[in-house]
Amino acid sequence: MPDHHFADRIFAAIERASTPLCVGLDPHLRHMPRAFRRAPDADPRAEDVRACLLEVIDIVADHVGMVKPQSAFYEQLGVEGIAVLKDVIAHGRAKGLVVILDGKRNDIGSTADAYCAAYLERGAPLEADAITVNPYLGLDSLEPFFAAARDHGKGVFVLVKTSNKGSSDYQDRRCDGTPLSDIVAASMSAASLAGQSEVSGWSSVGAVVGATHPLEGQRLRALLPRNLFLIPGYGAQGASARDAIATFVAGPRGLVGGVVNSSRAILFPSGAADLPLDGWRAAIREAVRHAATELGELTHPA
Amino acid sequence: MPDHHFADRIFAAIERASTPLCVGLDPHLRHMPRAFRRAPDADPRAEDVRACLLEVIDIVADHVGMVKPQSAFYEQLGVEGIAVLKDVIAHGRAKGLVVILDGKRNDIGSTADAYCAAYLERGAPLEADAITVNPYLGLDSLEPFFAAARDHGKGVFVLVKTSNKGSSDYQDRRCDGTPLSDIVAASMSAASLAGQSEVSGWSSVGAVVGATHPLEGQRLRALLPRNLFLIPGYGAQGASARDAIATFVAGPRGLVGGVVNSSRAILFPSGAADLPLDGWRAAIREAVRHAATELGELTHPA
Repeated sequence: MPDHHFADRIFAAIERASTPLCVGLDPHLRHMPRAFRRAPDADPRAEDVRACLLEVIDIVADHVGMVKPQSAFYEQLGVEGIAVLKDVIAHGRAKGLVVILDGKRNDIGSTADAYCAAYLERGAPLEADAITVNPYLGLDSLEPFFAAARDHGKGVFVLVKTSNKGSSDYQDRRCDGTPLSDIVAASMSAASLAGQSEVSGWSSVGAVVGATHPLEGQRLRALLPRNLFLIPGYGAQGASARDAIATFVAGPRGLVGGVVNSSRAILFPSGAADLPLDGWRAAIREAVRHAATELGELTHPA
Repeated sequence: MPDHHFADRIFAAIERASTPLCVGLDPHLRHMPRAFRRAPDADPRAEDVRACLLEVIDIVADHVGMVKPQSAFYEQLGVEGIAVLKDVIAHGRAKGLVVILDGKRNDIGSTADAYCAAYLERGAPLEADAITVNPYLGLDSLEPFFAAARDHGKGVFVLVKTSNKGSSDYQDRRCDGTPLSDIVAASMSAASLAGQSEVSGWSSVGAVVGATHPLEGQRLRALLPRNLFLIPGYGAQGASARDAIATFVAGPRGLVGGVVNSSRAILFPSGAADLPLDGWRAAIREAVRHAATELGELTHPA
């Protein structure tokens, strides 16, 4: 159903999997499993990374509705890495997954348009279903992404309150009493109204809100009642499943509110890197099943 | 002199050209000159963009010391566009130019490291001389870039006060009386001390400060006395040459303080798109000579 509104596609993907889990596809080269290296100590090549990630997508597609490749890990492999990214995005979409490209892009005017032409427009060379963007440059740097999302049935996630410790440096600064993250959320909320689904009322513009800050998350949910949250911090970064869904609200079939990402805990389960191919596959499957179930039992209790 | 400190390489490049002008290499597809299209109305292909930009580099290398490709315009051409970006960066460096990649990248921890592995480390697949980064995520997202710059003789330009109108939305917000841009500058200043040149005392960490805000620029110069500014807004965006160098200070041979970028006014001079190849070349040469001289007469008077 590629013509549906982005928010409704997310809801459908979550319903189908009965979990809001999204698997982060961040190929840290030094963690790449031995089964995909030519020799135990050989540096992984772009083609090894591709083979590994396409296998991961095949496995996780049975358990989740969304994946999130992080662009940096493909860019570090140069031109061949972008070819891998293209194949990862295409394979994920072909498997029916919603693919969120985590690039944290941002620029002004015609340059923002060029990023949309790269990733968001229908038929774009690296067409994904959504992209993450950074608000520092101001609303005029976000609006081209909002417009492209609306026009092409895509999603945009604006960094609002990130999961890292340093997110307090600027995002928590109080401007006339209001934290900067809330100011970004409030201006985004007004600008994103045009992108609401006629079915669910939720917007094609979402916010990145780290699971590591549950209190801030509650405050931001009040400001953004119908915007999907992309929630990092669950799993390896230390937030619990309950923290991760703290901003969820009652929906027609369970709790809804966004997408909970886990990368390392699923892509690189402890002890899996040295296993032979079959054992590695089983470890990935067990890791994704565990996280999908842990979140799903909270949002979609039987 | 690839082993010199980044700031000293910038100073040498400026001395050699007697101008702080940097040429922005932003291939807007709809502005691409006819001489590089297969047919007058044909969409430019990646190979056409490559041919055009390599010619531009050959021409501007006689007049300036720096170029700044903007990543979005290459990304919009997909995998082949990244191959063009790689060739543009390599050709600029082979011509002795300092190449600043304008990607406005940003992420945390190991993801920031992956961006450094892509663009800043010696031998990186898309190795440039410097990169632009976005501070919204906090200092822990900037430090990996600062460290890579220090360790590999590269530069980093942090977005502080950008040239667009929307830069007032968040960058001008007063937090306890201090604009956010100044808070970013102050924290950056402390963190960048480790990256100072033993020769000039200037840092490998610089700031993006738009020429369109000369008053804010003065304030930021006081906070960042030995940090290079990357200055957009001159030329097509409306700032004068005098505005563009308003933050410069007296150096050993003229006024110094950073790099003044001009993209469209040089890459797409008015009326040049429809000229035959020789006429187009002359127009590019005249455009870069004009801007280089206009700035050079202020910073390096005879």
